Amino acid sequence: MERPRHQGMAKNTYMRWRLPLVCLLWEVAMIVLFGVFVRFGPEADAHWEEEKQELNLTSDMENDFYFRYPSFQDVHVMIFVGFGFLMTFLKRYGFGAVGFNFLLAAFGIQWALLMQGWFHSFKNGKILIGVENLINADFCVGSVCIAFGAILGKTSPIQLLVMTLFQVTLFSVNEYILLNLLHVKDAGGSMTIHTFGAYFGLTVTRILYRPNLEQSKDKQGSVYHSDLFAMIGTLYLWMYWPSFNSAISEHGDAQHRSAINTYCSLAACVLTTMAFSSMLQKKGKLDMVHIQNATLAGGVAVGTSAEMMLTPYGSLIVGSISGIVSTVGYVYFTPFLESRLHIQDTCGIHNLHAMPGLIGGIVGAITAAAATEDVYGKEGFIKAFDFTGVYHTRTPSVQGGFQAAGIVVSLLMAFVGGAIVGGILKLPIWGDAAAENCFEDEVYWEVPEDEESDVYHMHNPDKPASP
Amino acid sequence: MERPRHQGMAKNTYMRWRLPLVCLLWEVAMIVLFGVFVRFGPEADAHWEEEKQELNLTSDMENDFYFRYPSFQDVHVMIFVGFGFLMTFLKRYGFGAVGFNFLLAAFGIQWALLMQGWFHSFKNGKILIGVENLINADFCVGSVCIAFGAILGKTSPIQLLVMTLFQVTLFSVNEYILLNLLHVKDAGGSMTIHTFGAYFGLTVTRILYRPNLEQSKDKQGSVYHSDLFAMIGTLYLWMYWPSFNSAISEHGDAQHRSAINTYCSLAACVLTTMAFSSMLQKKGKLDMVHIQNATLAGGVAVGTSAEMMLTPYGSLIVGSISGIVSTVGYVYFTPFLESRLHIQDTCGIHNLHAMPGLIGGIVGAITAAAATEDVYGKEGFIKAFDFTGVYHTRTPSVQGGFQAAGIVVSLLMAFVGGAIVGGILKLPIWGDAAAENCFEDEVYWEVPEDEESDVYHMHNPDKPASP
Amino acid sequence: MERPRHQGMAKNTYMRWRLPLVCLLWEVAMIVLFGVFVRFGPEADAHWEEEKQELNLTSDMENDFYFRYPSFQDVHVMIFVGFGFLMTFLKRYGFGAVGFNFLLAAFGIQWALLMQGWFHSFKNGKILIGVENLINADFCVGSVCIAFGAILGKTSPIQLLVMTLFQVTLFSVNEYILLNLLHVKDAGGSMTIHTFGAYFGLTVTRILYRPNLEQSKDKQGSVYHSDLFAMIGTLYLWMYWPSFNSAISEHGDAQHRSAINTYCSLAACVLTTMAFSSMLQKKGKLDMVHIQNATLAGGVAVGTSAEMMLTPYGSLIVGSISGIVSTVGYVYFTPFLESRLHIQDTCGIHNLHAMPGLIGGIVGAITAAAATEDVYGKEGFIKAFDFTGVYHTRTPSVQGGFQAAGIVVSLLMAFVGGAIVGGILKLPIWGDAAAENCFEDEVYWEVPEDEESDVYHMHNPDKPASP
Repeated sequence: MERPRHQGMAKNTYMRWRLPLVCLLWEVAMIVLFGVFVRFGPEADAHWEEEKQELNLTSDMENDFYFRYPSFQDVHVMIFVGFGFLMTFLKRYGFGAVGFNFLLAAFGIQWALLMQGWFHSFKNGKILIGVENLINADFCVGSVCIAFGAILGKTSPIQLLVMTLFQVTLFSVNEYILLNLLHVKDAGGSMTIHTFGAYFGLTVTRILYRPNLEQSKDKQGSVYHSDLFAMIGTLYLWMYWPSFNSAISEHGDAQHRSAINTYCSLAACVLTTMAFSSMLQKKGKLDMVHIQNATLAGGVAVGTSAEMMLTPYGSLIVGSISGIVSTVGYVYFTPFLESRLHIQDTCGIHNLHAMPGLIGGIVGAITAAAATEDVYGKEGFIKAFDFTGVYHTRTPSVQGGFQAAGIVVSLLMAFVGGAIVGGILKLPIWGDAAAENCFEDEVYWEVPEDEESDVYHMHNPDKPASP
Repeated sequence: MERPRHQGMAKNTYMRWRLPLVCLLWEVAMIVLFGVFVRFGPEADAHWEEEKQELNLTSDMENDFYFRYPSFQDVHVMIFVGFGFLMTFLKRYGFGAVGFNFLLAAFGIQWALLMQGWFHSFKNGKILIGVENLINADFCVGSVCIAFGAILGKTSPIQLLVMTLFQVTLFSVNEYILLNLLHVKDAGGSMTIHTFGAYFGLTVTRILYRPNLEQSKDKQGSVYHSDLFAMIGTLYLWMYWPSFNSAISEHGDAQHRSAINTYCSLAACVLTTMAFSSMLQKKGKLDMVHIQNATLAGGVAVGTSAEMMLTPYGSLIVGSISGIVSTVGYVYFTPFLESRLHIQDTCGIHNLHAMPGLIGGIVGAITAAAATEDVYGKEGFIKAFDFTGVYHTRTPSVQGGFQAAGIVVSLLMAFVGGAIVGGILKLPIWGDAAAENCFEDEVYWEVPEDEESDVYHMHNPDKPASP
Repeated sequence: MERPRHQGMAKNTYMRWRLPLVCLLWEVAMIVLFGVFVRFGPEADAHWEEEKQELNLTSDMENDFYFRYPSFQDVHVMIFVGFGFLMTFLKRYGFGAVGFNFLLAAFGIQWALLMQGWFHSFKNGKILIGVENLINADFCVGSVCIAFGAILGKTSPIQLLVMTLFQVTLFSVNEYILLNLLHVKDAGGSMTIHTFGAYFGLTVTRILYRPNLEQSKDKQGSVYHSDLFAMIGTLYLWMYWPSFNSAISEHGDAQHRSAINTYCSLAACVLTTMAFSSMLQKKGKLDMVHIQNATLAGGVAVGTSAEMMLTPYGSLIVGSISGIVSTVGYVYFTPFLESRLHIQDTCGIHNLHAMPGLIGGIVGAITAAAATEDVYGKEGFIKAFDFTGVYHTRTPSVQGGFQAAGIVVSLLMAFVGGAIVGGILKLPIWGDAAAENCFEDEVYWEVPEDEESDVYHMHNPDKPASP
């Protein structure tokens, strides 16, 4: 159904040649680069049959596939259904939420396989990939999905692709600095994914500030069923977060521990979120925005420390605090950010990812600094922090310092990178919509006739038969 | 949007201080108790690196995490998405269904980790937890989700939290009596989860009988899209039930067998449900209530016996019968229970959990009594029923008797416990809604403007009032 | 709510005795046949405890359950939620889409366990089943779900059950010819599942051609929320397709490789689909039909070759092409098929399964023909194509020829089988609806009152415009 456009609309949102061009050029580039660089890692290559014998492996079970594939699939669901549906809460932006998230994530994982591959899996001129690379690519794209949350409804698909291209690149550089140069632990990505992704997105949305956004204010809310669709996203993120935080931990006790810590933190977070959601509303009613988002802060906030000996009660404490901080953020900070700092944060990623991400980085630094051989066991201690090779003399307190440095580096990368990328996205060539057409699928999507069509409404004799 | 309240509304449903108080006090209690009692089990502790060597384990794969984590995640989905969305069928109670289920389950799993931990994982003053404890906590909370189905739409969140607190406690005691004192097998929880949970919930709803509930009768039905949301819940419960029944079975053939038996039982159940749904309706049309619920009875009814040598055809028989019983229950028993016994059972848990749970207990007793060394093999026989230690002389027929005793104990615990807890919930301090406001999200939730808002409706003043 | 029927309706769609009769007779037959034939395979039987010792297995992890169960559950979700919800895009056929898919799949897996069991798992007069049989049964039923897509909305549940009965039989015969007689590799089923299933369904819908289908044209479209429900199906199919293609591959590197190839192909497919969806629409807007369907073609098109050394860049190429072919198909071929060839293809399975399935078969033949010992390693080469026993002299190019023959056989089986089954379904005894009642749930389902009921509308003229 074509609705009359407001007269103010002057922007050119015509995608017909621009979007296909970007997608096709990109895919060709990927094919060429994959052709030159990407090959199967040893455990996915048909030569593994021989390698197994050389390594004296007695069972196919030793293939990393079986250690990580179930977690990979859970992470995959989080990226595509979790983030995609979480953002369908807007009443008329469901197609854009789930569809553009699909587009940018499919675009991003290919580039992430290359970028992260060059940094971490590059051998003899080839990038050798396996299931762990797939998980890391999903992780990297996760940070883009987070940033998408800040600019949801206000950007064209081309802007999203351009942002993905740059953000994946910056993510990989930042990740390399943290994991390889600073030798920081961050298995669940409190710093690399959440802190970086969220502050990057917030910086971008600041640069793209739209002073007249109140023109589309009527579309910034939810309707009853869009809130239920969003809960699908929420629950899948919540349920699978233990897989997220444990997916790339060391085999054995570390994966096991990560899952338990995350499970505990998330459970606690639900209770404090519900408590503050009710407490901060005059009538004491619960707000779906908080339930959909702040309940997840507990997963973010143990992202760095989940694989450490945080302990179950430590996880409960971290989860409880992050639920409170996040809910308070939705009630007080988000309006403040918009009115004072001109940061328009559609999904409130500041509350769900930025602040909990910082908490996660800090908790990780403290937990690392407090580590002792007594708590971890002699071998467990070395394994947990990989205090081997040139790092064999590093002490926990030094590790804690480097962890803290990781937070600062992530923030700097996010602010500087976000400012540059925001500037690029501000160019008037990417086809974003006018302020009065934001949060509206019809700009970029063929939208079917309304729910209340003649088919099962009928009864209106004046309404035209078809859109 | 605030709609004018009916004048009859006199009850105080103001949650602003009560709900936060309960949640926060509870979470503080959890943190203290976890701090005192809960630690990582050996396979999740960083000392595992050393323990592995002592136990001569050659592979990280021997960590229980890899045996159970995929099933754990499936069970987790069943509890939060399965039960949560199954209950969204009501036209105006979707937020309450999925949100309160989320709240009570997150609340309950923490308490279950403690309660079950004290009974089953307590060593040297500490509860040592691993992935199996997480599954068991989800199981325990599953019984609360079942009971929630009976009182759906008629209780305040505080009532639900109070019920969860008591029900988890009673569940753990009942489970201890069955598994440890009677030495009963019940891996899929036909008795401990379904029979106990359902009869507990039915007793509670009987005590909370609301004579004027027909005042909210117009809200007790579904709408087209709410039925589709409910099917998300149904299908996830149906698909993952093989994981549910096999999640805590012994490693190896027992887990494998449980999954197969459950798969077969559920497949058969769908066919008999469809048959009776059509047969019992005058016009021969299928009823979504049956498809959403009775198709799951096959999973409940093999909960005890799935890990035994029930055989695939035995599973088909049990599944077929339970589908019939459950569908007949929806058509004939539910109205009878309400009109004659004053049991108002919103979701029909009597049909989906209570009767199939009893069937499951009985089938389990028969299957156990019929076990022979020939069918199980000498070692398999001992392993399947854990006829070791003080139980090494127990015979199958004696085991069958104890299994039957387990049903009786579960029923008694449910009736007595449900009566007491129902009495507590009847106190006029918990903020439940008046009869005319039942099944209505607006009592406890901020509800967005209607689907048919001005945004994409545009105020056609000629539109007739109802279709 | 009963709506007035059109006067033209003359067909008898009364299901009350026919549907129950078919379901119950069928289930009894299944119980008898399972009783005679089906037993637990060695790894699911309680005797495994002894067998383990004979085979010198040191760990329960060697049970096939742990190699395949996570993939099985993903496949299970694809069949029931993936296909079920993908088809809910129609505005008034959501119950039929998800409900009839549920019915036919539950019906089909039982028969598939028998049919495939007789061909592949028959030992000493018994069919011995394990987790791989469950996956294969799901696969077989997947081909029926595909065919269902062509006739969606135009057939009665009895017709669907009859079709399932025959199609599962034909599928099993075709699969036996391909895998056992031609010794063809097809782990992801490009030929056996997609090519066969789609051309079978297209033939059936051709035979069932309805000249007056434009009478229900107003119901053939989607509404806003039905498109979002369909995206749930799309995303679960897309995310879990790596599990689909790797589920029954050899343990170890082959499963690992299949997942990676499929992941890459699907990612590329999304980009080319988006590009062509925008390019082929006059206004450059994206079409949800393409996003919901063509994005999946990449999974179909590597179904045969994913477990081979296709390489990641090869997968990107295949995925890119299949996305283009599929999207072009939706825009140009589907209307052509309907107007010229009288093939009414409700879901466009020609574009999503038939053409990509053919591509998949061809790519598989080429990849097999191009295989060398250098690329696979000496042992890997033999293992990958199972060049053992009577096949130990087969060369890659001969294998390529047999692969191509597999495509032809699948097509022939589909056309001949589809024509016969279509003829059977044309008999006027199965209760299908008149043309004007197609795509309408009310024919076979109890449908609740409309979304816009008086309950939460009430048309309060004083209602403020926004909350």
